[in-house]
Amino acid sequence: MTQTPALEFWFEFASTYSYLAAAEIEEKSLAAGVAVVWRPFLLGPIFASQGWTDSPFNLYRAKGAYMWRDMERLCVEKGLAWRKPTQFPRNGLLAARVATALNETGALSRFAKAVFRANFVQDRDISDPALIEALLDEQGLPGPDLLNHAASNEIKTALRRRTEEAAARGLFGAPSVFVNDELFWGDDRLDAALAWARARC
Amino acid sequence: MTQTPALEFWFEFASTYSYLAAAEIEEKSLAAGVAVVWRPFLLGPIFASQGWTDSPFNLYRAKGAYMWRDMERLCVEKGLAWRKPTQFPRNGLLAARVATALNETGALSRFAKAVFRANFVQDRDISDPALIEALLDEQGLPGPDLLNHAASNEIKTALRRRTEEAAARGLFGAPSVFVNDELFWGDDRLDAALAWARARC
Repeated sequence: MTQTPALEFWFEFASTYSYLAAAEIEEKSLAAGVAVVWRPFLLGPIFASQGWTDSPFNLYRAKGAYMWRDMERLCVEKGLAWRKPTQFPRNGLLAARVATALNETGALSRFAKAVFRANFVQDRDISDPALIEALLDEQGLPGPDLLNHAASNEIKTALRRRTEEAAARGLFGAPSVFVNDELFWGDDRLDAALAWARARC
Repeated sequence: MTQTPALEFWFEFASTYSYLAAAEIEEKSLAAGVAVVWRPFLLGPIFASQGWTDSPFNLYRAKGAYMWRDMERLCVEKGLAWRKPTQFPRNGLLAARVATALNETGALSRFAKAVFRANFVQDRDISDPALIEALLDEQGLPGPDLLNHAASNEIKTALRRRTEEAAARGLFGAPSVFVNDELFWGDDRLDAALAWARARC
């Protein structure tokens, strides 16, 4: 009996490179025979602990200018839709709480991809509960129930603990992938993480 | 008549990922049929303009811990020798001035790779003029003459201007590659830069 290799996919809804990884990870992991566990978390508290009160792409202008050009280039190369959002970063707290409330992987990944498209293709405000409810509805998920559940102390605490877990395990950016305790940072390290999982799990 | 595609390879002797790129770029560019122009520069002034007085890998602990593990992993994968240096970052000013004084590409790349090995394989102090002279000597290059030339106002000014040019063109980290004005940041984007150069030059 062999165990299926697995990885944890940690993402933040405000993160541009997380959008790329979310769009690609299912096809790539299926091809590699690696199971994926989706892990929404919040970068804000992790950035704040480094003294950043805004995205480093806003704080460091040259780094930001590069990221926007890089996203444009990568989306063309990967055949992904892309529109530079008029607001960056958007507040992903509500979406992350709803994603935390969605235990079933299929529903979570469908919802997450819809939120990323809303932010980075449709340029919509992902902190708006009406939008989140509409996206849940489009996925055939019970919007009002999930929004209520997402507002519960149980889910708020679960997301806070998950973000604390991320920091404790050495995570400092998004997207990040863990294969056991081996960390891979960035959409561009997804293939390396999958190869690691296949070789060692 | 067609023009050979070309790229500029911008590197800093203190930079771990620049060591990787310097070790790989000649073989990769030869295979791709792309010419490489080596461009030593200094990251210090660029980091200082962002408010950093040390390497971000020292300032941001989790990012630093990841980088050291990542280097270890990547060097195994690429079959490159590696020893975590006991001092980081080392001052690459002298080596960058000598590299600036070496106009001929072959000599520059041989010297640069020797400096990177001294820093990241042999754990030696690359700011020591005696080491730099020994490395030049090993490459069959006139050490005393080059050290004198490297200390001239001409070379000091040339390196300062080059670093200013890097900042003006939007460069914010090392290694970086320019294909005309298209910027690629990081050793892991070398293949993308080569493909860009082939497709568009």
